Amino acid sequence: MVLPRDYTGQRCSMARALEVVGERWSLLVVRDAFFGVRRFSDFARHLGIPRAVLAERLALLVTEGVLAPVPGPGRRSEYALTDKGLALWPVLRALVEWGDAHYAPGGPPRVFTHVGCGGGVDPAGGCTRCGAPVPVTETVTAPGPGYGGPGPDPVGAALSEPRPLLRPLPGHERRSDTA
Amino acid sequence: MVLPRDYTGQRCSMARALEVVGERWSLLVVRDAFFGVRRFSDFARHLGIPRAVLAERLALLVTEGVLAPVPGPGRRSEYALTDKGLALWPVLRALVEWGDAHYAPGGPPRVFTHVGCGGGVDPAGGCTRCGAPVPVTETVTAPGPGYGGPGPDPVGAALSEPRPLLRPLPGHERRSDTA
Repeated sequence: MVLPRDYTGQRCSMARALEVVGERWSLLVVRDAFFGVRRFSDFARHLGIPRAVLAERLALLVTEGVLAPVPGPGRRSEYALTDKGLALWPVLRALVEWGDAHYAPGGPPRVFTHVGCGGGVDPAGGCTRCGAPVPVTETVTAPGPGYGGPGPDPVGAALSEPRPLLRPLPGHERRSDTA
Repeated sequence: MVLPRDYTGQRCSMARALEVVGERWSLLVVRDAFFGVRRFSDFARHLGIPRAVLAERLALLVTEGVLAPVPGPGRRSEYALTDKGLALWPVLRALVEWGDAHYAPGGPPRVFTHVGCGGGVDPAGGCTRCGAPVPVTETVTAPGPGYGGPGPDPVGAALSEPRPLLRPLPGHERRSDTA
């Protein structure tokens, strides 16, 4: 059954938030943006979703100011998280923690660490070693004990090694680093 | 376009979590359970969704151990959050905070306070007054500055006043308090 996107009558900030990021795949698109994915083709291959669905999700996220188009190679735009998009990090982290606790019998597939000192990130977003709050810009993601091996696409391959969040994936770096 | 519930190929705890709570309305059902809603008819009236959709969402949440059936009046079951369901509170709080920050121009429609001392709850889940972590069982929800008035149903009416989270709504209290 297809339901409309809006939660009419639900006067609640959570309902408003879900109207923006609650559609199927939207939060996985946002997750990939945190992982450094910027190109339509990289989102499409890593997520394995129909291009029409991806285009629709990206358009909504841009309309709502979660992602912004940034200049890419040729005439194509890429997509980068805005400050409003970056502010979704606690939502993603909370979902990951719940999934790790209940659906990761072999341990977390991915772990997050504090780039400054190598500590983990506790549920409140603090470093388990130095105690400082760990902003997303100081967070490294790496395969965890439950990691199942790289996926068959370039994004999956890049995520098989530790990477700072938000660092554009290989192929984007030269452009972004000199911007 | 209808998409399957599972995120095949996404070996990620967030994807696993979204397979359980990422369907439309599921997190609003969970939210209502935090507000003390337990009866099918109360969920249905407060959410205003087709009963078939609600039945499907409740069934999945029970199958996954987020909600558990508890004895209700007559031969009907009610639904209560399990420990696994209670562990979703940080997810809901993070979504509410993001929605408050970006979609509540008149201020938060609902606020959360620490029952022990009346302080607010900071983004990391601590009390803004006493500094202690605020567990969901010590959290009160009340209309905030952006509150739009009670909805036309009994749940909406109950939420027009401050209420501890998880306290069963009027009509359930006698049964639960003596259990």
